[in-house]
Amino acid sequence: PRPGSTCAAVSKHHFHKQMAPVKVFGPAASTNVARVLVCLEEVGAEYELVDIDFPGKGHKRPEHLARNPFGQVPAFQDGDLILFESRAIAKYVLRKYKSEQVDLLRESNLEEAAMVDIWTEVEIHQYHPALSPIVLECFIYPTLRGLPTNQRIVDESLVKAKKVLEIYEAHLSKHKYLAGDFVSFADLNHFACTFYLMDATPYASLFNSYPHVKAWWEDLMSRPSMKKLGAGMTTRV
Amino acid sequence: PRPGSTCAAVSKHHFHKQMAPVKVFGPAASTNVARVLVCLEEVGAEYELVDIDFPGKGHKRPEHLARNPFGQVPAFQDGDLILFESRAIAKYVLRKYKSEQVDLLRESNLEEAAMVDIWTEVEIHQYHPALSPIVLECFIYPTLRGLPTNQRIVDESLVKAKKVLEIYEAHLSKHKYLAGDFVSFADLNHFACTFYLMDATPYASLFNSYPHVKAWWEDLMSRPSMKKLGAGMTTRV
Repeated sequence: PRPGSTCAAVSKHHFHKQMAPVKVFGPAASTNVARVLVCLEEVGAEYELVDIDFPGKGHKRPEHLARNPFGQVPAFQDGDLILFESRAIAKYVLRKYKSEQVDLLRESNLEEAAMVDIWTEVEIHQYHPALSPIVLECFIYPTLRGLPTNQRIVDESLVKAKKVLEIYEAHLSKHKYLAGDFVSFADLNHFACTFYLMDATPYASLFNSYPHVKAWWEDLMSRPSMKKLGAGMTTRV
Repeated sequence: PRPGSTCAAVSKHHFHKQMAPVKVFGPAASTNVARVLVCLEEVGAEYELVDIDFPGKGHKRPEHLARNPFGQVPAFQDGDLILFESRAIAKYVLRKYKSEQVDLLRESNLEEAAMVDIWTEVEIHQYHPALSPIVLECFIYPTLRGLPTNQRIVDESLVKAKKVLEIYEAHLSKHKYLAGDFVSFADLNHFACTFYLMDATPYASLFNSYPHVKAWWEDLMSRPSMKKLGAGMTTRV
């Protein structure tokens, strides 16, 4: 092996890793893409957003299937590393750019990490299934697909949402954030769905009956990451 | 502060932490409970299984709601710490008992951890939604609820399952396990649903068209953890 060529390879590699910002593939308005963006904003990482043409089925084209064989967004690139699945990408970002100031997974603390994981799972299995149908029926389907709102689904979801929010209210009356008295990935995961609920449906007042949930949400929305992304996602003229 | 009393308190605490095995609350036959048990078996931890009387609505009683306000199983206890959500519990177990020999999350390696996370998410969003309805319709509903199998749902799920398994086949032809050439949490998460598919439905031959998937599953089922738990879950006389 010639030392010169090895050295050049290392330099090139270094240049590549240090200089090229990471790339996120997908439309910023997608809730799963927003999950990754809010993490990148929180850690202050430089990134490039590469749009995927959804109406043109860009997510089903070979170059995107090479990133994610299931043909979904977001995908992510960091040098030669390609990732998919928004929660996996988000955790990669939070680990890579972790600092003493910004540690949103708390993986070095057994109990804190478990609390982050619990409330990340609660968002997936309880919060999202109850609240996202309201966003779909009142905003996404009418706007993107020209479909009418199915009010029966909205009403059923509101009943479920209230049960979930009662449990959140009890929990947030004891802890400032979901995993404890620190902001974590578990809180951030609520951003996009809740933002659209508040911004684009007639149910922005839903949280009024849950003062601790409302205060928690307002606290989150005061964060620079969410203000910035929310401004780009807003549905209001 | 009296040194004597502090010392006694520390000893008691130590005794408590060292001697009391962790507790898992829930029926072992539940797929979400099995997710936790397989991790406990893999790391070789001592544990106590505390049954929750499902037909008697034990999961909705106050003592269980104090463990999990959403009234689901499993819940978990380690000393004074109470956890819920099976994936959060499983990760706690894998972190707590991590060793050089058994590291199923690989959180200290950015790329490996991302691969574990990606395929953990793929199990949640692709594999489970396609394959679990077959288990529900062919085994769980007829056995536990006396309901007939809805063959239309089974047939639709088989179509979805084949699309997912094609992607698994391509992936497992390049890597021995889902996250790479090492067993991880991502593989373990496939255990209970796949076990019931193979053991309790007419579709055990489904994997025959996917030789790498079949070899991967047989390799997993040769592990002592899965052999032991499978023996307790078997539906065959």
